[in-house]
Amino acid sequence: MEEGALCALADRVAIGEVLAAYCRGLDRMDLDAVAALFTEDCAVSFGSHPALQSAGREALRRDLERLWRFRRTAHHLSNLEVRAAGDSAEAVSYVMAWHERPDGSTATLFGGYEDMLRREAGGWRIARRRQFMNGADAGFAAPIHPAPRRGPPPGWAPPPGLR
Amino acid sequence: MEEGALCALADRVAIGEVLAAYCRGLDRMDLDAVAALFTEDCAVSFGSHPALQSAGREALRRDLERLWRFRRTAHHLSNLEVRAAGDSAEAVSYVMAWHERPDGSTATLFGGYEDMLRREAGGWRIARRRQFMNGADAGFAAPIHPAPRRGPPPGWAPPPGLR
Amino acid sequence: MEEGALCALADRVAIGEVLAAYCRGLDRMDLDAVAALFTEDCAVSFGSHPALQSAGREALRRDLERLWRFRRTAHHLSNLEVRAAGDSAEAVSYVMAWHERPDGSTATLFGGYEDMLRREAGGWRIARRRQFMNGADAGFAAPIHPAPRRGPPPGWAPPPGLR
Repeated sequence: MEEGALCALADRVAIGEVLAAYCRGLDRMDLDAVAALFTEDCAVSFGSHPALQSAGREALRRDLERLWRFRRTAHHLSNLEVRAAGDSAEAVSYVMAWHERPDGSTATLFGGYEDMLRREAGGWRIARRRQFMNGADAGFAAPIHPAPRRGPPPGWAPPPGLR
Repeated sequence: MEEGALCALADRVAIGEVLAAYCRGLDRMDLDAVAALFTEDCAVSFGSHPALQSAGREALRRDLERLWRFRRTAHHLSNLEVRAAGDSAEAVSYVMAWHERPDGSTATLFGGYEDMLRREAGGWRIARRRQFMNGADAGFAAPIHPAPRRGPPPGWAPPPGLR
Repeated sequence: MEEGALCALADRVAIGEVLAAYCRGLDRMDLDAVAALFTEDCAVSFGSHPALQSAGREALRRDLERLWRFRRTAHHLSNLEVRAAGDSAEAVSYVMAWHERPDGSTATLFGGYEDMLRREAGGWRIARRRQFMNGADAGFAAPIHPAPRRGPPPGWAPPPGLR
């Protein structure tokens, strides 16, 4: 163990703070704070639909205004996994994203982010982001990239008696 | 990177453990363990109603007995952000707090904590806590401090076709 | 602070990654990846029913196939607490486990894991795992070990006016 290990730990903490700050900034709709967490040339893809892709910090900031269609949101981030090398890092995290519409209906996403971050003068910033979804409640309608899930082998049958 | 950086990382981990232990202690209603995580002179504000404020460890311990009105609870903590300086630290975290009443009805809060912690002989303790809520399901009734959320600029309209 | 402290922090991060990788592997039903996170002689107990206990990595891998009865799942891990000593560690974590059946019905568990991990040549692995539940929604039927929760003292009455 030496200085490299210490730097790696500090990087990991810093990256976790970037991801948490994204959630907090988004839930408070402080879009300037959110945009500052991304590189100027960032590429963000929430889903395959063109409206769910943003190229560049300025476009992302503007595109995220769509969250004003909700009355309230809550983005709970967890399950952080980081692979860092020098000034670049890959991070996978989970997010439970709860959204409430003005009519009181809600939409909850159980998904996550696959990120590539870059260390810049101002700290770690998200350069590439791809959102995935493991699932969602019935109220959630946006076509987020589905996470891959392997299917059972041919002939598999559920154990009896389990629900 | 040097000893200061290592201490900062260790402090951060220790603070995260305090916040997790709060959740675990509360869900098991081990109020002695919960109270031990706070300074003797702590000030805790869950909301603006006087019944949601506690002054001092002993009062807090007694006030938290109100959670016995629920049959079960689950406090899931995430999104930790820490700013530490010497023997003092500020932490912001998120919590999804699920509560089940004896009649089976549930109340879920999507919120968080803004904490000031102090390093004491026994370790980091919460000296000031303010809970905030980003949202809650329809069953949640307690008037927790609402988190600030910026509104759209005048004339903003939601993009067509998005729900 | 010295090398021991640095190793402890690195161990903690590595353990958190193991627990996160379990969730991600399970949600993607990559059971080879999941099984590789456990020691060959692992013992896993999700509940007191014999069908909820697995002895050994190979049996665990096979037993986890039962999750194919769901269409999608999402395991959100948080609240990590770790006590490590040498090549052994105890970890407690929380998990919100969302499951969706082919008929669209869902089952959500609010629980966690009490783990004993061992450092092996390939890294930290889970040697003993015991799942607990603080609660669950009405759709969740599996008899996971209930977490202990202390009851109120005799004569305790809920404060008036609180719901």
